[in-house]
Amino acid sequence: MVPRVKPIDLLIRNGTVLTVDPHGTMIENGAVAVSADRIVKVGREDALSTSCRATKTIDAGGGIIMPGLVNTHTHAAMSLFRGLADDLPLTNWLNDHIFKVEARWLNPESVHAGTLLSCAEMLLSGTTTFCDGYFFEDAVAEAVQESGMRAILGQGIVDFPSPGVPDPKENVAEAARFIEKWNEKTSLVIPGLFCHSPYTCSEKTLKDARRVADAAGSLFQIHVAETQGEVKEIEQRHGVSPVQYLDRIGILNARTLAVHAIWVDEADIECMAGHGVGVSVTTESEMKLASGVAPIPEFLKKGLAVGIGTDGCASNNNLDMLQEMDMTAKLHKLKTLDPAVLDARQVLALATRRGADAIGLGGQIGSIEVGKKADLIIIDTRKPHLTPLYDPVSHLVYAAGGSDVRDVIIDGRLVVHDRALLTINIEPVFEFVSDLARRIAS
Amino acid sequence: MVPRVKPIDLLIRNGTVLTVDPHGTMIENGAVAVSADRIVKVGREDALSTSCRATKTIDAGGGIIMPGLVNTHTHAAMSLFRGLADDLPLTNWLNDHIFKVEARWLNPESVHAGTLLSCAEMLLSGTTTFCDGYFFEDAVAEAVQESGMRAILGQGIVDFPSPGVPDPKENVAEAARFIEKWNEKTSLVIPGLFCHSPYTCSEKTLKDARRVADAAGSLFQIHVAETQGEVKEIEQRHGVSPVQYLDRIGILNARTLAVHAIWVDEADIECMAGHGVGVSVTTESEMKLASGVAPIPEFLKKGLAVGIGTDGCASNNNLDMLQEMDMTAKLHKLKTLDPAVLDARQVLALATRRGADAIGLGGQIGSIEVGKKADLIIIDTRKPHLTPLYDPVSHLVYAAGGSDVRDVIIDGRLVVHDRALLTINIEPVFEFVSDLARRIAS
Repeated sequence: MVPRVKPIDLLIRNGTVLTVDPHGTMIENGAVAVSADRIVKVGREDALSTSCRATKTIDAGGGIIMPGLVNTHTHAAMSLFRGLADDLPLTNWLNDHIFKVEARWLNPESVHAGTLLSCAEMLLSGTTTFCDGYFFEDAVAEAVQESGMRAILGQGIVDFPSPGVPDPKENVAEAARFIEKWNEKTSLVIPGLFCHSPYTCSEKTLKDARRVADAAGSLFQIHVAETQGEVKEIEQRHGVSPVQYLDRIGILNARTLAVHAIWVDEADIECMAGHGVGVSVTTESEMKLASGVAPIPEFLKKGLAVGIGTDGCASNNNLDMLQEMDMTAKLHKLKTLDPAVLDARQVLALATRRGADAIGLGGQIGSIEVGKKADLIIIDTRKPHLTPLYDPVSHLVYAAGGSDVRDVIIDGRLVVHDRALLTINIEPVFEFVSDLARRIAS
Repeated sequence: MVPRVKPIDLLIRNGTVLTVDPHGTMIENGAVAVSADRIVKVGREDALSTSCRATKTIDAGGGIIMPGLVNTHTHAAMSLFRGLADDLPLTNWLNDHIFKVEARWLNPESVHAGTLLSCAEMLLSGTTTFCDGYFFEDAVAEAVQESGMRAILGQGIVDFPSPGVPDPKENVAEAARFIEKWNEKTSLVIPGLFCHSPYTCSEKTLKDARRVADAAGSLFQIHVAETQGEVKEIEQRHGVSPVQYLDRIGILNARTLAVHAIWVDEADIECMAGHGVGVSVTTESEMKLASGVAPIPEFLKKGLAVGIGTDGCASNNNLDMLQEMDMTAKLHKLKTLDPAVLDARQVLALATRRGADAIGLGGQIGSIEVGKKADLIIIDTRKPHLTPLYDPVSHLVYAAGGSDVRDVIIDGRLVVHDRALLTINIEPVFEFVSDLARRIAS
């Protein structure tokens, strides 16, 4: 006789399971069974607890059990510059402040510390996977490994001297070296590259980078159509919009993440949809820098895979994906003067399953489904601002914040428990970063 | 010889004091001395600790010491309906959902519980004073007294049967009775009235209510120019804009709070400024209901006293004033495509000192200045998302959330310590509200 009780590693029980699967399945009194790094069963607790025997059990305390959040765009180490320069125009902010402090203060040690700080913040606000684009990406990868997070890391490419790459001629080669070093080294650190934009990278650079990314099967990230100024510049130089330009030179394919994509027209959207390009929208940063509003409802109509990102902490100024959902939902209602636009269910999907699709990890993460990686979070709903509870999805988008995340599991491993970081010793990170900030400020 | 050491009741020390006074004075290594319900000294800790001897000392742990937040518009008891109906047009949301559940489920007991729940949430997110407009306002006043908060409470007035006032002919008389009952009864509960809007109250009702408010020296709150539909309706009925209409019938004076004030033109703004009308903007609710964007920068140019409010939890869906600041700042940058608009300092003032001005309490609260009431909060900055710390004001507006509030002092009394509520026993409130919600949902 076949044994009816399945031994598993971990059972998460006593919660409402929001699977965020394509049907939006929600299971009250639900549970999730995990073996090694995978979800092996999802269902009602009474059924699972009789069919599974778990080595370890986590009681969700009547809260919400849901997939970990997917932050599709950030520059993690920029937490070093959080609040250093606010309320400034993008070009002034970038050229007079950010590029200057980056040139002066970035090195493998500071990038490592800034990334660890951001990983701590992301873990404590429920992000389990993030997509990064920055410099000294080896140091980023090491910090991510320590944190236990999952991340796609893009070594930054620009056609001027950049931190760690003083000779811009080496920019693509440096990204290729990074990808080669980390490719298939671990299941959590996934290397890729990040061409800054069509206005800071030449056609040759973009094409070379595309070849490197394609050869390795890696994600090619790029800021595109972020400001009206950029669109004007690209149109003057190349006679077409930024998206059309990238299409013409062969950059767009299904392993491309177009970040921002604010000033795009219908032809641009159709072009991206035709190539299977993923899009990352970073609402809070785009508002703070006054860049504009990306047409998410139009992206969704055309079937584009859209994710949400926080952008870096220098222009947000935090990495809270729950808050990002709230602002994204509300902004689109306002923009269209239609409160039914981007409802809570749609926005929750952007922050999880569709975000995973946008960065090419849709088969592995982004929802609670059997066979997917066990990237799960528990939301503590026993709080004044989450009481009463008519609709868990509404609470996640419109009422909750990152600090309501209680536990975090990544790849089957518990990394945050009762809001304590189990992988990062945060005190030395605070010390290093605060000391560095004192020197930067003076 | 005169003794040099002053005995005081409470010394709050070891923090950066953001006074939010008109000069934006910030004091590093600062302290605040409190005697009874008042601030008696503000300065550097070394100076204060030698000149004062305190009965009780609170160590701010290197965090931020600042004035309590002033929520200039909410309907506290609507927390009962948080997340019950989202993503709907205003009229549909109001007529098919909110008015119906209010008619069925509001009574003194439920309003008391919902208000206590909201007081708990507000205290835990740093609000020390709020301005309420609802029904069964006696029950609200009792909950506020229990919570230890400071509040201006407006008994609701509409020209149709409303919860607690089945005969609309009694609406103004009921408000007059409420004001008489609570006027000068306590220093923390300040009665007033709340005419719902120029489209739900007749000219006679508005004028009668104005007389009652003026006779008592009370605040007259009113929703005005919230939607394009309202403006159209008032223009059709009265030939002028909502603001001009209220002016023509003598409703506007310095004890008036105009809530929303979204669809106003320059003449409307000048009219409000001329009468010294205060304005309350509730950005998140106005976005979620797709009402529009109030022209805050234009209000400020004309010298209007502007405050921020959360509105009720059924359209926000929380009472987090720190998040409200963030969204307000970012939205106006986006609207004007100018990231320098509404900088962090201005927005912090709206949530504190200017908000107090808008509701007529500017002489008493809203900043840390000698002689003002001791309504103070402490922000814990030793967290990943608040590290490093270049600029406390930037962090408050762009990075912090309500859950970063550690301690709350109102009228000189400690009401939250280390995130524990000292005045509200929350478990029975959770139980009552959750049970009620189950019945409402079924």
